[in-house]
Amino acid sequence: MTAILAHDHDFVGEVSQDGADRNGEAAMVSVVAVARRAGVSPATVSRVLGGRVPVTAETRVRVLDAIEELGYRPNEVARTLRAGRGRSLALVIADIQQGINAVLAKNMQRMLELQGLDLLLFDLDHRQDRLRDILERAPSLGLRGLLLSSPHIMDMTPLLPALRTSVERGIEVFSVSQDLSALGITSVVHDDAGGARIAVAHLLARQSAPIAFVGRVSTSAIGRARFDGYRHALREHGQPVDPSLVWDISEGFRADAGYRATSEALDRGLRFRSVLAASDELALGCMAAAADRGLSIPADIAFIGFGGLGLGGFVRPPITAVFLDVDAQTRTVCSLLGAGRSSAGSTQCHLIPTQFVRRQSA
Amino acid sequence: MTAILAHDHDFVGEVSQDGADRNGEAAMVSVVAVARRAGVSPATVSRVLGGRVPVTAETRVRVLDAIEELGYRPNEVARTLRAGRGRSLALVIADIQQGINAVLAKNMQRMLELQGLDLLLFDLDHRQDRLRDILERAPSLGLRGLLLSSPHIMDMTPLLPALRTSVERGIEVFSVSQDLSALGITSVVHDDAGGARIAVAHLLARQSAPIAFVGRVSTSAIGRARFDGYRHALREHGQPVDPSLVWDISEGFRADAGYRATSEALDRGLRFRSVLAASDELALGCMAAAADRGLSIPADIAFIGFGGLGLGGFVRPPITAVFLDVDAQTRTVCSLLGAGRSSAGSTQCHLIPTQFVRRQSA
Repeated sequence: MTAILAHDHDFVGEVSQDGADRNGEAAMVSVVAVARRAGVSPATVSRVLGGRVPVTAETRVRVLDAIEELGYRPNEVARTLRAGRGRSLALVIADIQQGINAVLAKNMQRMLELQGLDLLLFDLDHRQDRLRDILERAPSLGLRGLLLSSPHIMDMTPLLPALRTSVERGIEVFSVSQDLSALGITSVVHDDAGGARIAVAHLLARQSAPIAFVGRVSTSAIGRARFDGYRHALREHGQPVDPSLVWDISEGFRADAGYRATSEALDRGLRFRSVLAASDELALGCMAAAADRGLSIPADIAFIGFGGLGLGGFVRPPITAVFLDVDAQTRTVCSLLGAGRSSAGSTQCHLIPTQFVRRQSA
Repeated sequence: MTAILAHDHDFVGEVSQDGADRNGEAAMVSVVAVARRAGVSPATVSRVLGGRVPVTAETRVRVLDAIEELGYRPNEVARTLRAGRGRSLALVIADIQQGINAVLAKNMQRMLELQGLDLLLFDLDHRQDRLRDILERAPSLGLRGLLLSSPHIMDMTPLLPALRTSVERGIEVFSVSQDLSALGITSVVHDDAGGARIAVAHLLARQSAPIAFVGRVSTSAIGRARFDGYRHALREHGQPVDPSLVWDISEGFRADAGYRATSEALDRGLRFRSVLAASDELALGCMAAAADRGLSIPADIAFIGFGGLGLGGFVRPPITAVFLDVDAQTRTVCSLLGAGRSSAGSTQCHLIPTQFVRRQSA
């Protein structure tokens, strides 16, 4: 009980400051008001705010509702409001197990450290419902910035209030897996479409048409951009886009999805001479499916991946790929971070060039 | 200077409240008192508390001493001191680009989130000098725990004061890549030696001796433990340990190191029928070197990896491996976290069993 009371004083203290700043009155009011509104004791409010001692879900919701209604802002929030700048950056990432995302996390942490900032990691595990929770918590995390690395195409409308609140509290928000500049979010993305066009041109020049495409087309902005590049390149060269050769997977860009899509296509007797895969992992799975049917790579079917993972060079044959320049992407984000928020209307989408690296799979 | 002053006000504000709580006086007192006691300016006190602008070690100690003597408690530090518990856990990891480490980060973050805790990521990039810096910063980060995932064998003596300080401030410290229980650090490690013994027994039963071993033996506790299992298993079966077949690499467990070691061994005409690699990535590199010389896997040379990455199942032939149970490891750490610190002397090393998964490479 003593510990909880100590917390109470802590929160009360800071709130009263906040109150004093705004209306010149000494406080103790707000936390008591929250408790009264929620029908709980001030100690319970502390417990909810501290997040360490368990309270029932129902109580938690009541207290959080009361906090919202009354506009109560405890400690970290108060600090963020006053100072405008936190000491860490939240990296909200779709799936850190995908090799390219681990590179992003590693680079980001190293560069932030040089700026004296820490990295908070949130792995969405492709569950988009969690994104809203994290955005809503953002202002209480003492963040300087939030880096969203989720390609999931979704209705952003429900997220906008939380995003706006973050920005108002001085948190710089960036998107690195899809262009959200139209929503006022500075975006730093790879030139996925450009990379795909060069890959398709390479395959066409080597007589590897028909070309299949595998990726998450309808639900991933990255998959969509790479597909757009594929489609445009085919049209530029007067080639048709055959819908049966566009394999729109529903899961993450992992090897098993590539294996399954290629196996199904081969089982159905579809005719294709090459596959452009939206990730190196997908390409690896596609190649395994072809190898398991005794097909020769690239003679029978050629494969191109996306990413440029070190592992791709040690698979046999090594995977030809559109390399992403995560170093350049990280540097760009870090140079923008703290450079001051640009005025409304000038929010940009920065495009990071990719590089086509030919190995032996295509 | 303005920024520092702004921060100053920030801290002053909170301190004054704290002062008011305890003795009913309006404040500005404490931070000034701290500065006076330490013989520095209030701005310097802010700098020490903020931790962003460098101050000399001597000044830092003076300020911290004064803070302690006067019982001054600014924001996060105050909370940590009073509650003894922060709201985040620092994952200090040797190299998140190694697949198994990304899995650890992902699992850890998910399980922490269920406990209402956040994950701060620090990637050492194999630079051990950074470990000390991070440990020294730990008490100011508002941590609940610190999870050290670095297998680097090093003299821990210089780290002990910082570790002790962390523990005194209520930060629970765990080691997951090496057994540091002798230093009072609860350790949760895989049964690497046991896994290696089963792998060697498998290779011997399939007439795949002589067996080579590749890994970081002299500088990595993980490499060392796996090598120990290899050595013991050979001895158990009455087989010699041929030093020319122990490839002690100096870099991380990446594919290129495996490729190089195997290529050199083949160039030197060394005779071996199988390779036990200390990671799946290493095994992949080893297999590529053999394939590039037209050798057949596993007929000419068999290969076994460590880890159990998803990718290993899509390489051709798929990689036989000692699977690590990162889920069980994460669950164990999370169950210990917050279970209360055990009394001195009962610090344990928890051993997580591995699983031998036979695919086609051995």
